[in-house]
Amino acid sequence: MQYTKNFYQIKSNDEIFAKIQKEREYIGYYNLPYQDTTEIKEFAKTVKQKDIVVLGIGGSSLGTYAIHKFLQHKENDKKLHFLESTDPIEITYKISKIDLQDALFIIISKSGTTIETISILKYLHTLTDINNKNCVVVTENDSKLNEYAVKNNMKTFEIPKDVGGRFSVFSAVGLLPLAIMGLDIDNILNGCKEVSNSYFAQKGFYEEIMQKARFMVENKNRFNINVIFSYSSLLEGFNKWYIQLWGESLGKKNINGTKQALTPIGLLGPIDQHSFLQLIVEGKRDKTVTFIKVNDFQTDITIPDISLYGLEELDYINNLPFKELINKQADATIEAIESLRDIPCDVITIERVDEYNLAKLMFSYQLLTSVIGKFVQINTYDQPGVEAGKIILKDKLQGNL
Amino acid sequence: MQYTKNFYQIKSNDEIFAKIQKEREYIGYYNLPYQDTTEIKEFAKTVKQKDIVVLGIGGSSLGTYAIHKFLQHKENDKKLHFLESTDPIEITYKISKIDLQDALFIIISKSGTTIETISILKYLHTLTDINNKNCVVVTENDSKLNEYAVKNNMKTFEIPKDVGGRFSVFSAVGLLPLAIMGLDIDNILNGCKEVSNSYFAQKGFYEEIMQKARFMVENKNRFNINVIFSYSSLLEGFNKWYIQLWGESLGKKNINGTKQALTPIGLLGPIDQHSFLQLIVEGKRDKTVTFIKVNDFQTDITIPDISLYGLEELDYINNLPFKELINKQADATIEAIESLRDIPCDVITIERVDEYNLAKLMFSYQLLTSVIGKFVQINTYDQPGVEAGKIILKDKLQGNL
Repeated sequence: MQYTKNFYQIKSNDEIFAKIQKEREYIGYYNLPYQDTTEIKEFAKTVKQKDIVVLGIGGSSLGTYAIHKFLQHKENDKKLHFLESTDPIEITYKISKIDLQDALFIIISKSGTTIETISILKYLHTLTDINNKNCVVVTENDSKLNEYAVKNNMKTFEIPKDVGGRFSVFSAVGLLPLAIMGLDIDNILNGCKEVSNSYFAQKGFYEEIMQKARFMVENKNRFNINVIFSYSSLLEGFNKWYIQLWGESLGKKNINGTKQALTPIGLLGPIDQHSFLQLIVEGKRDKTVTFIKVNDFQTDITIPDISLYGLEELDYINNLPFKELINKQADATIEAIESLRDIPCDVITIERVDEYNLAKLMFSYQLLTSVIGKFVQINTYDQPGVEAGKIILKDKLQGNL
Repeated sequence: MQYTKNFYQIKSNDEIFAKIQKEREYIGYYNLPYQDTTEIKEFAKTVKQKDIVVLGIGGSSLGTYAIHKFLQHKENDKKLHFLESTDPIEITYKISKIDLQDALFIIISKSGTTIETISILKYLHTLTDINNKNCVVVTENDSKLNEYAVKNNMKTFEIPKDVGGRFSVFSAVGLLPLAIMGLDIDNILNGCKEVSNSYFAQKGFYEEIMQKARFMVENKNRFNINVIFSYSSLLEGFNKWYIQLWGESLGKKNINGTKQALTPIGLLGPIDQHSFLQLIVEGKRDKTVTFIKVNDFQTDITIPDISLYGLEELDYINNLPFKELINKQADATIEAIESLRDIPCDVITIERVDEYNLAKLMFSYQLLTSVIGKFVQINTYDQPGVEAGKIILKDKLQGNL
């Protein structure tokens, strides 16, 4: 007797792990932690310009921005700019902040024909000379943008074909600008390696990721919204990166054509205690919440021991380091939500504000996304839903609509 | 016979309108469009400092940020800073960008005892002299912060008691810093007035708001997520303001204790075409989408008529002004989503990037929020859900936990 089926069924952890191991053979991001970064570091050393301009959108900028925003205070004295949107006022305003005579342009596009990126690249040509002294290109080896770079003798860095845009932060896409900004890209990869090694050896990260993925999947119809509540403003970029990773990877039809339900939201504490928190506490129970805390901010700025006339009732905050205040705010919010008992939540603690610890967080989220994708039986790495809009746009621009 | 009930029922538009008219007598934000702005404008003229520092969180900063971000390119040469989070690295980094000797601090807190705001205010005292020459206070007339201001002979501006934080942008909370930055605050209020007058005369805005509110409420269990997809990076702040307004106002238990379901999400086009759009198109049908477009960006920067080697296939974008490109991108996305026929969406077009048009949008969203609150029979203006966390925090800080 032969039994075949096509209905969706949540598989065992072992089955999922076997599939991820197989996927590792043809999905490129799994290998990025182990790459040789010599060429990137060598090039970064040669960069003399003060203004570093990343020209890229979506996966070509979000990951870089996430790490930059987290570690901005540790960077060298260069200034990192992102040209991304086609909003004309934004473009003009951002370019006004760049010294075009002292800028390095990093053009990043996996496909090489991203319309936003090429539009702005063309526009930059009207403002300054773009040449092999002030422009490098990060793209696939056989893209049209690569042809442009080669023709103009520009330095190029490769995005491997099997590394998707939203999984590309640990390729040259992210590492090149971050190395130029003086960050320790090897330590970034060390963080990735720790997670990767642990996961594939079925050690600590394996258990964590499998458990969380299984919970998300088993409860996806009840809890269709996944909130990340980061208690540090430095994680603002990470939140945005997470939203792209989660939304674009997991917002798919599964093998039965069933539309999936996981919707990412990114919040910042304590700011969003004054905004979204009310909705979490009293709104419909359709959300899971993942808190992210920083254990040690490594700065001791402290609320001074002074009394302000009229405000003496707040003197109990005197002598409190801000790093303790923000973590106590996190703990208070976590306890308040846990006490409700019907909002699933977990807490991730980052040890320290450095390359290694953020990379651990980001790589573990990439793995989590891959594992959930396997559980719900979708292609985590494509984005067929955005093609229709692109075709309509092209028709409009070519005058056919 | 007498018939009483306490079950939730969607009321008629007439009943809702009558309730809103009644509410207008005791909820203060409805009156803000008609206020006298002389005192604010007179004070703004006297400000000589270059760095303007808003010290406030949530409703004390989000609305100001929204308008500032939209009109930044039209402001004078002063620089507007926001101190908001208790993140110690963020505080240090932001303060490093401020010339403390040439700064005006605007301390904004409705209650006057907001812990984030007072903590940072105390910390500023260790860095510079805070006095009546460089500090003004915006708060309730009888708050503890007002006592501090009066004692120190500081200029104060009032937040009326009946104006809630997230409905306070059109009070001195927003108007004071925006006037100092050179924006036309009377034109802001003119935009509010147009919406208010039209709504209360049951003209155009009345129909729009009632229809939209009714749809949201009738379908709130099916479409529990409300996405705003703004096709201009300048609306980034508006999106954040909307999230607070929507989430904190509508995330409530109704008269039957039923937890409500409306969850706000803010997206930016075209950037989020490369992120969240895939999830909208292929994800579960749990979202409504409101597109916001800017009709005329009033800038003609244009993609030049040049061909880049290798990229000739993209020459069809040549000679296209960016303002047309971004709007065609919006239209293509809208058409792609409309063609699916099962994602409710609407489009709001802002005529121009100015004070008047943004204020219209913001005031109409405040009214929409109030109307939905009446439909679902909640108190739109309180936030009881955040109190538990505040009590736990206080206990922790006072050493009781």
